[in-house]
Amino acid sequence: MKTLTVALPGREYDIVIEAGVLDRAGESCRKALPRAGKLFVVTDTNVEPLYRRQVEESLTRAGFQTAFHTLPAGEESKSAARLAELWEAMMAFGLTRTDAVAALGGGVVGDLAGFAAATILRGVDFVQIPTTLLAQVDSSVGGKVAIDLEHGKNLAGAFWQPRLVLMDPRVLDSLDDKTFADGMAEVIKYGCIADRAFFDFLCAHSSRAEVMGHIEHVLYTCCDIKRQVVEDDERDTGRRMILNFGHTVGHVYEKLGDYRVWTHGQAVAAGMCVAAQLGQSLGLGGGDAGRDLQALTGLLAAFGLPTHIPCGAEDWGLVAETVGLDKKGAGGDISLVLLEEMGRAVPVKVKKADFLDKLSQLWGRA
Amino acid sequence: MKTLTVALPGREYDIVIEAGVLDRAGESCRKALPRAGKLFVVTDTNVEPLYRRQVEESLTRAGFQTAFHTLPAGEESKSAARLAELWEAMMAFGLTRTDAVAALGGGVVGDLAGFAAATILRGVDFVQIPTTLLAQVDSSVGGKVAIDLEHGKNLAGAFWQPRLVLMDPRVLDSLDDKTFADGMAEVIKYGCIADRAFFDFLCAHSSRAEVMGHIEHVLYTCCDIKRQVVEDDERDTGRRMILNFGHTVGHVYEKLGDYRVWTHGQAVAAGMCVAAQLGQSLGLGGGDAGRDLQALTGLLAAFGLPTHIPCGAEDWGLVAETVGLDKKGAGGDISLVLLEEMGRAVPVKVKKADFLDKLSQLWGRA
Repeated sequence: MKTLTVALPGREYDIVIEAGVLDRAGESCRKALPRAGKLFVVTDTNVEPLYRRQVEESLTRAGFQTAFHTLPAGEESKSAARLAELWEAMMAFGLTRTDAVAALGGGVVGDLAGFAAATILRGVDFVQIPTTLLAQVDSSVGGKVAIDLEHGKNLAGAFWQPRLVLMDPRVLDSLDDKTFADGMAEVIKYGCIADRAFFDFLCAHSSRAEVMGHIEHVLYTCCDIKRQVVEDDERDTGRRMILNFGHTVGHVYEKLGDYRVWTHGQAVAAGMCVAAQLGQSLGLGGGDAGRDLQALTGLLAAFGLPTHIPCGAEDWGLVAETVGLDKKGAGGDISLVLLEEMGRAVPVKVKKADFLDKLSQLWGRA
Repeated sequence: MKTLTVALPGREYDIVIEAGVLDRAGESCRKALPRAGKLFVVTDTNVEPLYRRQVEESLTRAGFQTAFHTLPAGEESKSAARLAELWEAMMAFGLTRTDAVAALGGGVVGDLAGFAAATILRGVDFVQIPTTLLAQVDSSVGGKVAIDLEHGKNLAGAFWQPRLVLMDPRVLDSLDDKTFADGMAEVIKYGCIADRAFFDFLCAHSSRAEVMGHIEHVLYTCCDIKRQVVEDDERDTGRRMILNFGHTVGHVYEKLGDYRVWTHGQAVAAGMCVAAQLGQSLGLGGGDAGRDLQALTGLLAAFGLPTHIPCGAEDWGLVAETVGLDKKGAGGDISLVLLEEMGRAVPVKVKKADFLDKLSQLWGRA
């Protein structure tokens, strides 16, 4: 068992990483939420049959009155309509300001339930119980919650820190390889942006079985990096941006595939390769840049992640539009995250026009 | 001209009270929002024909690129559907994180636009330009923003402080007497909860013409009281509750009338009379309680506000349900705001059952 404490101004919360913690969810929630009588649990059709029973029993034993709300699995649930559905269901359940909301599921469930928790009655306490590797290392930590709009992903949301994050590594056994790899893209990202030694560790343990052999170490390391970055910059106005390594181009890929062709992890994997190349073309990364890029593509490929996603000339309008709309962009510039060296990311401001130009060269379109 | 500065941890903003400030909105916004290129202005069908042109011209002169979004006037616009409509329109306008949203209108426009500003791209800067007395003295100050749900008013929202509040007393001339009185209920409330001398001042100036003769003083006094309370308790976990004097029962009236029969001010006026009587019946208010109650009802009546709203036996189920759901209630208790004496409100915790009992006696139903 490993516990990390995230310390933010005015609130502090624990991330508990422990095999079997799902069966003891009630005790942990009771400690974190001493005043709550009701707990509104959001889950989805994939997760509900696997874990609802044990979580519900544990919560009931700890004295919580629970309501489970099961959403259709998939990104489509991260919508304004589902948010309104949750709000009404929470009020129908009789939730009060001293009660709480829990997310039992992957990133979609966590983002949507978290946004609903941030806004129902102007904000109630929130617990994350992430059930995918991606949600464990990424979306469940840091307090970013959101829904998608027709104009793009995560465009409406809030910063709303959980009171507790419960991570049970055992749930990862239920994931198929593709979903596991989806999370590995973000795991590898942490090595790239902040921890050369961790990157090397992953290169030496480049299979699902090897990673699972050290899963508490892996989860802890990723969450600890994210913790440090979030503590530095909760509201995402500076350093936190380095967590977006690979994400600007990644979002383009996701959008080009209408969020169906490429998973988030796949898009980020290929996006990291583009960002690494971009950095190299701008003279970053020093003499090792070429070897590091090779190591990165090799590692991603070992988990079945794409290292290049082709983009046709006919997609270009959408690319430009997507980059123009990307909320990380401010005015006419775009802030990109590039690698100063493997294990150290830096935000770099580039004119949007220059970025598109460079991108078109990399994609072989110029 | 009077300026008040609201100082909250990490952010500070001005409330500018000045005749004609609407014509200079651009300058003021530019000072408060030095980085913003785009300003998304939300207004409604009542306000747009009156003030859009002068505000738009002033904003344009100050270098803002503007988009005006006009909602149907009325409480129905404070809905999840309209919120989603605003989100999409903001993205269609190309809003970025350094841009801002402005509300030009009454409480509905301010609450909805503020909630949209709090959540689009996880929060952008926000300016309030309130055009009703109610919005000027109440909803535009303090950072509470929200929409209504099917289950009740203001149930989903956020705390999101504006960067600037611009109050032009001249806009009040366009209000009909009923809408003016609607705001007077809240004006009178400030005297009741925090300023005996102001209450007496109002008793000595109990007509619209007399109030307008001292409007900057009236607006300043109300906003200054609200400022102090909000600075003490931004997140509404303690002292801020005194602003809800008359509101718990007021919300019941609003709901009984399906939000159409009684305006917010009318409901609060009658709610304050019930709260004053409740306090009296609990021994609060001392020897002057009877005389103060009489002065309060007299003052409200002078502005054409109701001091008693009858409630039939058939409404009782809805009353109990509404009180049970009121978000100020925590668990089995309800926190009421009562008058210790005229000019000094205190929060008092009462069992919901006792409260309903007392209420039914006051309404003559027992």
